[in-house]
Amino acid sequence: MKNRIVEASIQLFDQKGFTATSIKDIVEVLNVTKGTFYYYFKSKQELLRDIHLNYIDDLIDQQERILGDEEKDCTEKLHGIIYMVISNIRTNKESARIFFREMRHLSDKHVEEIRLKRNLFRKNYQSLIESGISEGEFKTTIPADMLTFGILGIMNWSYYWYNPDGDVSEEELAVIFTDIILKGVKTQKLV
Amino acid sequence: MKNRIVEASIQLFDQKGFTATSIKDIVEVLNVTKGTFYYYFKSKQELLRDIHLNYIDDLIDQQERILGDEEKDCTEKLHGIIYMVISNIRTNKESARIFFREMRHLSDKHVEEIRLKRNLFRKNYQSLIESGISEGEFKTTIPADMLTFGILGIMNWSYYWYNPDGDVSEEELAVIFTDIILKGVKTQKLV
Repeated sequence: MKNRIVEASIQLFDQKGFTATSIKDIVEVLNVTKGTFYYYFKSKQELLRDIHLNYIDDLIDQQERILGDEEKDCTEKLHGIIYMVISNIRTNKESARIFFREMRHLSDKHVEEIRLKRNLFRKNYQSLIESGISEGEFKTTIPADMLTFGILGIMNWSYYWYNPDGDVSEEELAVIFTDIILKGVKTQKLV
Repeated sequence: MKNRIVEASIQLFDQKGFTATSIKDIVEVLNVTKGTFYYYFKSKQELLRDIHLNYIDDLIDQQERILGDEEKDCTEKLHGIIYMVISNIRTNKESARIFFREMRHLSDKHVEEIRLKRNLFRKNYQSLIESGISEGEFKTTIPADMLTFGILGIMNWSYYWYNPDGDVSEEELAVIFTDIILKGVKTQKLV
């Protein structure tokens, strides 16, 4: 039941927004009582925290698995993480959009908890870029922090527009984005 | 007074969200009556539409001025638009975040109006990329639509993290992002 409450709330929060969705809306969709809701969650804010945590913990797990793979160089790991995030869109699009949009509705205590994890995800990216620079794979002229924000931008925006059932597959999109980031779009003769 | 209502609402909508902000909240900040609010706006939704329109119309104007400059090649125009968006963060950060976050709270009629303008902004970018490809400035292997979404991602995300008063100036950030997009981050020897 806990999972069903989470799933139904994710749909409602994504469609209507966190503030406009009441606990009544959630229990009506599931045809259960408010008592059932309060058995699992102290409040709507607790539920929002759960959605945030599930989302970011899962991403960090997957990210750290890729970063820990000693058979891959930094270029391959970069491609791996880009592919991981894009593959995640099919199943977690709504959670991601709630994550980007509703963080300010968390309680102060929870905001801090989530912010630390969000920063960890970003810093893991940045460490990868820094390793790539020190390994000679990436240019020494690239500011690792700015590049990280740029990559996060490409990734985060894709939750809003990318349709995994459209013309471009997840694999193809990961190759396109990795290729742009690695090699750029300018023709050689004009560089 | 109309401008003051818009300015106060932008701050409140950005901090608390559109749904959680009441007309009472807005008029209290300004120390005016609800009658004053309703003299300028039929509803909170009308006000939200105004904020959306001001934001996107201004961006499109600036974008089209750059695209229409016949002295610039496509590479220079790309840099020009990236710089324009980053410069816009200082003054319009809150409007932009409302634009990204609150569109679903517009009335159906207004959603369509805003969506068309939003698409125009994206298609202008894409036309520039397509011209760059046909002029031989950008690689023919780059899918113009996917690159456009990638660039929009870098740009849109910067409204959330970039601090124009920090270590990196608007000019510097525009050069960094343009450089990554044009030339990529991979060292030549390993390409």
